[in-house]
Amino acid sequence: MRAGKAHSMVGGGGETSYATNSRLQEKAILETKPILEEVIGEICRTLLPKSMVAADLGCSSGPNTLLMVSEVIKTVADQCKKAGRPPPDLQFFLNDLPTNDFNNIFRSLEWFEQKMDKKTFIPYYIAGLPGSFYGRLFPPQSVHFFHSSYCLMWLRQILEGLKSKTGTLLDEGNIYIGETSPPWVVNLYAQEFKNGFSNFLNFRHEELASGGQMVLTFLGSEEKNLSIGDERYIWGLLQDALHDMVSEGLVEREKLYCFKVPMYTPSMAEVKEVIQEGGLFDISRMQYFESNWDPFDDSCDDFVLDNLQSGANVAKCIRAVAEPLISSHFGEGILDELFSRYANNIARHLLKGKAKYHVLVFALKRRG
Amino acid sequence: MRAGKAHSMVGGGGETSYATNSRLQEKAILETKPILEEVIGEICRTLLPKSMVAADLGCSSGPNTLLMVSEVIKTVADQCKKAGRPPPDLQFFLNDLPTNDFNNIFRSLEWFEQKMDKKTFIPYYIAGLPGSFYGRLFPPQSVHFFHSSYCLMWLRQILEGLKSKTGTLLDEGNIYIGETSPPWVVNLYAQEFKNGFSNFLNFRHEELASGGQMVLTFLGSEEKNLSIGDERYIWGLLQDALHDMVSEGLVEREKLYCFKVPMYTPSMAEVKEVIQEGGLFDISRMQYFESNWDPFDDSCDDFVLDNLQSGANVAKCIRAVAEPLISSHFGEGILDELFSRYANNIARHLLKGKAKYHVLVFALKRRG
Repeated sequence: MRAGKAHSMVGGGGETSYATNSRLQEKAILETKPILEEVIGEICRTLLPKSMVAADLGCSSGPNTLLMVSEVIKTVADQCKKAGRPPPDLQFFLNDLPTNDFNNIFRSLEWFEQKMDKKTFIPYYIAGLPGSFYGRLFPPQSVHFFHSSYCLMWLRQILEGLKSKTGTLLDEGNIYIGETSPPWVVNLYAQEFKNGFSNFLNFRHEELASGGQMVLTFLGSEEKNLSIGDERYIWGLLQDALHDMVSEGLVEREKLYCFKVPMYTPSMAEVKEVIQEGGLFDISRMQYFESNWDPFDDSCDDFVLDNLQSGANVAKCIRAVAEPLISSHFGEGILDELFSRYANNIARHLLKGKAKYHVLVFALKRRG
Repeated sequence: MRAGKAHSMVGGGGETSYATNSRLQEKAILETKPILEEVIGEICRTLLPKSMVAADLGCSSGPNTLLMVSEVIKTVADQCKKAGRPPPDLQFFLNDLPTNDFNNIFRSLEWFEQKMDKKTFIPYYIAGLPGSFYGRLFPPQSVHFFHSSYCLMWLRQILEGLKSKTGTLLDEGNIYIGETSPPWVVNLYAQEFKNGFSNFLNFRHEELASGGQMVLTFLGSEEKNLSIGDERYIWGLLQDALHDMVSEGLVEREKLYCFKVPMYTPSMAEVKEVIQEGGLFDISRMQYFESNWDPFDDSCDDFVLDNLQSGANVAKCIRAVAEPLISSHFGEGILDELFSRYANNIARHLLKGKAKYHVLVFALKRRG
């Protein structure tokens, strides 16, 4: 889960940083590798660009950022070797919000270059591009390939829509869509997703070269009713911890009542609808997969082997993603206590069985 | 003075940072404004690019970085208004070493966007590009305009050439070309400059689009013999402070004996020779100007009004540039003491009269 307009991940390389807690996102990139390879191969074969421009939107700061880069380099090298022609130069743009830790990415480039296989040598250039992908980022038709992983479920904002006429926040006490949230609240989140995603598609269509493609991976659900399933618990269990801290006087009730997680996990059908209504892209590939909450649990069993360890792992993973959001609202002081309680809540929840993220992958091809 | 291969400036926005101590460099950009405007105007008129790509090589991290960007935006807006046609989109690349503080630049972008005059609105996009400009940075023929200010006098390295066959460093005790340096040492610095600058021109020629141009500003001298003039004192006075600290046991003699400032300030004739030998560029404009050592002294008098204040100002300015170089070699512990002594040395030197930097500006047009 990475940043939309709302916030950046935890920077640096420390214990709570996104860079050291992003195995979940790594697994998603590996899961989507076949689609990535097909799409990149098609761009190479059909567009034959002398220089190919690829951008990762919401790149965050960590090893995954350069994982996409290395996958693209390898695929282009393979494809061109098979076709017996010289590879194009590759220009990469790593995009995220200006508050992202770009220094950390840039300082890992030397290590990355050393690691890259010398045999698949292709000239490549890596730039950082600060800005929200809910706005324009590139000159017209200047990009061949967009990649975005674990970002598009982040909304630009959700607070405005939840304000009453007098300015107080509605759906009190829920930090996300909760069991007690009325349907209009669910619709508000859905509508905010649709507007944001629709804007995203418009901007990317302007920026993509003719025949350009995108691979978009984000949290969602296979069917509509799941959209408020396990993802609701991820935030619901954090909400429980916050409520406990309110009742113990550690967090102000008013603070909690004006905090919302700007996220929506759409169903496959909802995503398709936005794409088709826009009419700017053809869906060339769709994929759905599930990923265990615990990023270090690679098993397919239904039960959790060590629920305490898994609880701690999940809490770390969510902290790397949500800490800036939470600390800017509640202050840094509550972080350790909050995430310790959260880890316990998750551990208890996992006793019922394994919980999963639901992940959607769309490969889109620019029309015209 | 900014980074070549050797080192980055002091990051952040603190009292000793480059960002708050870069008035000298700001003055140089303002001094070269007429040339910048002429060159940008010519690119607009002759190349008519739909999207124009401009890069600042050795951008460092501070207000000047975005000064170049705003100058280019304003000039393009003016030129297109005069010609009565829509302006191109502008894509900027801010380049420096991976250790440069790119986060600081990116976090100032919001402020920059608010400051930009809404009336001269042109779509522009700003990326950060980590890497040494003594290597390739861009795909072939993908850039219309290169800018580099106060960087090219920095050498990639100088130590290797100064090593004896047994590995000890020659020209002992001099951290730069000193009064006691033999001619072969001066030649070594000159040769290292020539090689680096020649490589620089080759790479930029590959990267520039047909008809593309560059504006290069760097420390040098109008005539050959000046090349080891005031610039020698800038480092000579720092060297004096280091020697004093050696004799007081505050710095190890061996440490001092293996420290060299990787800089060479070429004469106008030397620069022209490298450009003409390469045969890749035509010199369209040349300029020479002088700039007082004290960046806050804008007067043309021959005497220094407040030599203590000026000494402190110059020391701050050089510290912002040279601190990473010095602290990585001698450790951070000596910095405050060293630069305090340095400020005094400069103050004493300025009693003799005003000292100046000698600055060369070259506008080069790609052949072919």
